[in-house]
Amino acid sequence: MTLNEIGSRARAVSRDLNSLGSREKNMGLEEAARGLLEGEDEILAANEEDCKRAEENSMSQGLLDRLKLTPARVQSMADGLLKVASLEDPVGEVISMKLRPNGLKIGQKRVPLGVIGMIYEARPNVTADAFGLCFKTGNAVILKGGSDAMESNKAIVRWIRRGLIRAGLPEDAVQLIEDTSRETTRELMRLNQYVDVLIPRGGAGLIRAVVENSTVPVIETGTGNCHIFVDESADFHMALDIIFNAKTQRIGVCNACESLVVHRRIASDFLPLLKKKLEEKQVEIRADEAARAIEPSFAAAEPEDWGREYLDYILSLKLVDSVDEAIQHINTYNTGHSEAIITSDYFNAQKFLDEVDAAAVYVNASTRFTDGEEFGFGAEIGISTQKLHARGPMGLKELTTTKYIIYGDGQIRS
Amino acid sequence: MTLNEIGSRARAVSRDLNSLGSREKNMGLEEAARGLLEGEDEILAANEEDCKRAEENSMSQGLLDRLKLTPARVQSMADGLLKVASLEDPVGEVISMKLRPNGLKIGQKRVPLGVIGMIYEARPNVTADAFGLCFKTGNAVILKGGSDAMESNKAIVRWIRRGLIRAGLPEDAVQLIEDTSRETTRELMRLNQYVDVLIPRGGAGLIRAVVENSTVPVIETGTGNCHIFVDESADFHMALDIIFNAKTQRIGVCNACESLVVHRRIASDFLPLLKKKLEEKQVEIRADEAARAIEPSFAAAEPEDWGREYLDYILSLKLVDSVDEAIQHINTYNTGHSEAIITSDYFNAQKFLDEVDAAAVYVNASTRFTDGEEFGFGAEIGISTQKLHARGPMGLKELTTTKYIIYGDGQIRS
Repeated sequence: MTLNEIGSRARAVSRDLNSLGSREKNMGLEEAARGLLEGEDEILAANEEDCKRAEENSMSQGLLDRLKLTPARVQSMADGLLKVASLEDPVGEVISMKLRPNGLKIGQKRVPLGVIGMIYEARPNVTADAFGLCFKTGNAVILKGGSDAMESNKAIVRWIRRGLIRAGLPEDAVQLIEDTSRETTRELMRLNQYVDVLIPRGGAGLIRAVVENSTVPVIETGTGNCHIFVDESADFHMALDIIFNAKTQRIGVCNACESLVVHRRIASDFLPLLKKKLEEKQVEIRADEAARAIEPSFAAAEPEDWGREYLDYILSLKLVDSVDEAIQHINTYNTGHSEAIITSDYFNAQKFLDEVDAAAVYVNASTRFTDGEEFGFGAEIGISTQKLHARGPMGLKELTTTKYIIYGDGQIRS
Repeated sequence: MTLNEIGSRARAVSRDLNSLGSREKNMGLEEAARGLLEGEDEILAANEEDCKRAEENSMSQGLLDRLKLTPARVQSMADGLLKVASLEDPVGEVISMKLRPNGLKIGQKRVPLGVIGMIYEARPNVTADAFGLCFKTGNAVILKGGSDAMESNKAIVRWIRRGLIRAGLPEDAVQLIEDTSRETTRELMRLNQYVDVLIPRGGAGLIRAVVENSTVPVIETGTGNCHIFVDESADFHMALDIIFNAKTQRIGVCNACESLVVHRRIASDFLPLLKKKLEEKQVEIRADEAARAIEPSFAAAEPEDWGREYLDYILSLKLVDSVDEAIQHINTYNTGHSEAIITSDYFNAQKFLDEVDAAAVYVNASTRFTDGEEFGFGAEIGISTQKLHARGPMGLKELTTTKYIIYGDGQIRS
C-alpha cells in the first residue's frame, strides 16, 4: 500500500471514529487487548526474529532490552489497553458555552485531532500504547516504528486489528507503515493532506530529524537536561535524598537529574555529604573550579558539560551566589523539561517557580515525577518540551483539539 | 543588527516581560498608544513614502488601500492598544491544582509563550496590533512585515519603543527586522533557539511558504473556503439573509461564504429566490449540472470551483440529496475554517455540528461571525485553521502556554 493510500484510509476512518461513543471505543480496546493475548505466540515468535537479527547486527544491550518481548510484557501491553479503556473519555466535552449579546450561543467542544502519525524507534510496546491512547480519543493512528522491530510491530498491529474487527470497529484505526525507507519517512512528514499531527518518540537525533523535515505540525517530545538547585536554606537530608533519587533511580530517562547547582554559602558543608551519598552508586561528578577547590576529587567540568544529557551515572555541578544566578544558569542550559529547587525559603521558592522556564518546575521534590502516570493522567503518550498545544506529560486530553459550535436563530453580521 | 542578535535580545527581554504584572504591562500599552499619537506626523510621512513607491510599482488598489494610513487609522491603532490594556490578563492564572496521593501539589499555570515571530504583508496596522497582544501576554515579538510597508513599520515601531522607554519598560519587547531579503526570512523560520512560535498572517502563498520552510512551530492562520448548507427544512427567508450576508457583507475576508450546498428537494423553489437575492450585488453563481437544469442562467462549475476561495462576488453551488452528502462534500473541500447549516431539523443540526470538521460550525447564523471580537475575546491575532494549540479566532489566551508547578516536601519516586 502506498503512503497516500494509508493516509487516505486513515482520514476516512477518522471521520467514523469521531462519531463513536466511549462505550464502543472501550469495547474496541478490550477486544484489542484480547487480541494481543490470543496472538501472544505469534507476537513472541515475530519478536524473536527481530531480536535475532538485532543481535547479529550487534545492537547494544540497552536497546536489545527495550526490543525484547516476553509473555509478561505482552500481558502488560494488553493491561495497558484495558487501563486506557477505564480512563475518562475527554472527547465531546463542551468546555465553555457563552451567550453573546446578539443571541448567538458560542461553545467550545473537545474533539479528536483526526489522524496522528507516530514516529518511533525499536520499542514494540509503543505500538500498542500509541494505538490505545489514539483510539480512546477517536483518532486514527499511522505508526512508523523502527525497522529493528518491524516483525514485532506487524504481529502486534495484526492482532489489534483482529480485535477491532471482532468488535465491529474499523481496523484502519491503526495502520503500520511497512516500508522503512528514508523517502517514505520523509513523505510521511509532509503528508499534510492526511496527517494532523506528528509525534516523534525516541532519541534526540530522531526528534531533530522530524522537527527539521516535517511540514505537518509536530509535538516535540524531548530530551531532559534537568537541574536541581540546592539553595542555602535547603534541608541537607532532603536535598541528598532527592538528588540521589533523581540521579540514580533510573538513569536512562528524560526526567533524571543531569546537573546540580549549589549555593556557594553551603558548599563547603554540603559537597562532602553529596560526594559520600553519590559514591553509593559510583556517580561521577563533573564540577566547576570553585567546587573542585572544596572537593578536589571531583572531575573538572568542560563548558559542554552544562548542556549535556548524560543518561548515565554522571552529574555536572556548579556553584552560584544566589537564586537569581541559579535561575539564569538553568534558563541558559536547560531543555525545558523538569527543574527543581530545594529550599526552605518562601520567596526563593516562589521566584524559582515563576522564573524558571520549563515544562515542570518543582519545589522540594524529585524531577523524576514528570510523568503522565505520576501526574494522575492514567497514561501518557510522551512528554512535550515545546510550548505549543501541550507542555509536559501528555495524556488523553492532549490528543484532542477543540472546535467552536455556534447555535443561532438567523443572526447576520452588521 | 543580525537576526541572531535580534533573537538573543528578544529571548533576554522575554525573561523580564514574564515577571511583569498587568499594571506595568498596561502602562506600557498606554504609553505606546501615546507614542503613536505623538509620532503621527512622522508615521504618516513614512507611510506616504511607502504609498508613493507602491504606486510607482503599480500595487493593486485593494493592497494600496490596506497599506494607506490616515490620521483616523493611526488613532485607531492607538485605540487598539488601549483596548488591549483594558482586557483581562490571562498570564499567571493557575488553571488547576491537584493534590496527589503522595502529597505533591501539582498545578498548571498560564505563562507567556516567550518569543513570538510575526510574518505578515503590507498592512502596517498589524505592526501595532501584534505588538499590543504579544506585550499584554508578556511575550517579546519579532516583526517581519512586508517590504512595501517598511518605512511605515519602522516609524510605528520607533514610536512604540519610545513609549515603552517612557514607561520604564524594555523597548526590545518589540523589534522589527529591517532586512527584507528572502535569506533572512528563511533564517527567521529556523531560529528555534530564540523563537518559540511563528504566526504568519497574509495570503495563502505566504502561509504555505512559512509552513513549508519553518522548523519553528507555526500557528497556521488561514484561508477560508466556507460553506453554507441549506437543508430541506430551512426557513428560506433566513437562508437568503444569511447567504447574502456571508457572501456580500465583505468579500475579501476569510470568513466570507464561498460555496453553497442546497438540498435537492427544495432546489426548484429555492434557487429562483437565491438568484434574485444575489443579483442585488451581481454575485456570479457557478453551479453543478443539476442546479443549472433548474436555473440555466447559472454558470457551469468546474471541478476546481469546489475548492476555491474566491474572495470575490462569486459563489459555487452544489445540490445534494441529504445532510450526509452535504457533510461529506464539505469535509472534502473545506479549509477547516467556518461552515454553516440552515435548518429547522434538530437531528440534522446536531449531525452537522458533530461531523463537520472545521474550526467553527454554525447552525442558522452567518459564517462572518468567526472573529475574535465577535466571539467576545476583545481582540484577535488571527484565526487558526490548524488543530494544534489553537483553533479558530485566537485571543490573548492563545498567546500563552502553561507550565506545571509542583509543591513538595521531600517526595522522591519509588
